Amino acid sequence: MAILVTNDDGIYAPGLEALAAAMSEIDEVFVIAPDREQSAVGHAITLSSPLRITHIERECGFTGYATSGTPADAVKLGIKSLMQDLPDLVISGINLGANVGASLIYSGTVSAATEGCLLGVPSIAISLDSRTDGHWETAAEFAKIIARDVLAKGLPEGILLNVNVPDLPRSDVKGVMITSQGKTNFNDFFEERMDPRGQRYYWMCGTLVADDERRDHDVRALADGYISVTPVHYNLTAHKFLGDLSNWELDKNWRGDVH
Amino acid sequence: MAILVTNDDGIYAPGLEALAAAMSEIDEVFVIAPDREQSAVGHAITLSSPLRITHIERECGFTGYATSGTPADAVKLGIKSLMQDLPDLVISGINLGANVGASLIYSGTVSAATEGCLLGVPSIAISLDSRTDGHWETAAEFAKIIARDVLAKGLPEGILLNVNVPDLPRSDVKGVMITSQGKTNFNDFFEERMDPRGQRYYWMCGTLVADDERRDHDVRALADGYISVTPVHYNLTAHKFLGDLSNWELDKNWRGDVH
Repeated sequence: MAILVTNDDGIYAPGLEALAAAMSEIDEVFVIAPDREQSAVGHAITLSSPLRITHIERECGFTGYATSGTPADAVKLGIKSLMQDLPDLVISGINLGANVGASLIYSGTVSAATEGCLLGVPSIAISLDSRTDGHWETAAEFAKIIARDVLAKGLPEGILLNVNVPDLPRSDVKGVMITSQGKTNFNDFFEERMDPRGQRYYWMCGTLVADDERRDHDVRALADGYISVTPVHYNLTAHKFLGDLSNWELDKNWRGDVH
Repeated sequence: MAILVTNDDGIYAPGLEALAAAMSEIDEVFVIAPDREQSAVGHAITLSSPLRITHIERECGFTGYATSGTPADAVKLGIKSLMQDLPDLVISGINLGANVGASLIYSGTVSAATEGCLLGVPSIAISLDSRTDGHWETAAEFAKIIARDVLAKGLPEGILLNVNVPDLPRSDVKGVMITSQGKTNFNDFFEERMDPRGQRYYWMCGTLVADDERRDHDVRALADGYISVTPVHYNLTAHKFLGDLSNWELDKNWRGDVH
């Protein structure tokens, strides 16, 4: 029995160390993470180049594997190549920065947990709503609670948990809310600059804006000072549109019966 | 009015050229795509490095923009920085290789269409079930039918279409099937090798295996010789598990009321 710990901020991130320490109070911990920051990589996997793995051992006692791959690669490599047995839990984080609303789609943290889920292991993504250093200990405390629950109760096939923790001391957290993924917009834009050789380049800018009246979505819960727990699936079929789409009679159209 | 055409195989891919040519029969076409292959990048966006854009003009008459970014970056850049007005359609492809079942999660082709959808534009991803060169003309023919339909009828907010075309001459295609995303497993593994300097490296290997008894899922439809059209959303909340998760009483547990 073991817990696979990973992240997308890289093997040297303080959030990973905090999470690994918290999980080691529960069980044996196996750490594998990207060798550098891999934020916003989405569910990327590496097909066209080989992957490297380096064993890391730090003076503080932290040990783990660093890989040249993405967060999803890290989980695949850990489970398929390095671990003797399937872990009992995959937990990804503690990410520096919230993963709520539309940012779930871009999140390397969530994708690592999704990969665990795809490989049949109960999986959790956990993020701290901070831009710089923050209250890792608050998130680590909740990680222990939710990890113990998931280990005891399991999760349905194809469902993982996405946890977001406000950057507050434990005593200031309002509570825990079960949430849906919030509807958000990115008001993003590109800042155009000129390099020293007179060539144009672009920086992506912008922030996530909630566009959701409901009280129980992740963006809102977090902003209100609650820990947000969202059950996430990757069943991407928009079932509610299947009927309407059938009425388009694409098959007839393709066969040339419709003129 | 214009159609944004993109892909994840890169600006020089034959599938992109076939798609741009087909779309130019319908309307003005604006092409922006990665400057090199970006398969399996998932919904990655580029935050930590600047993006470059190069204008491409080929002798055959093909013009477009190549970007150093990912497919999702390409769509963002096209819409937010380069195009005067919002396009009426984003179409991504024609991808070399099917995007069905769990591979939707990893697909750069689908992520480009998802990005279009997030930015409020009706969007389509289209892929050809071939490993090498193939019947681009079959996919291009269907691309025209579905693009015209989407332009005429629109799509509900937050829903895009994922189209997969068998690699057959048009006359051999069985028809068009409206499908769900199939349940699949990757039987993936890593092949371990030694480089000339005696250092280990790993190649990801494996294939997608359908694990779905239903007749109307994308993997099956495609294998049976049908064009598969799946409505896709990115609402990742697993609503069916919200109730059970509430029963875990995480809030009570966090507050220390449960002992």
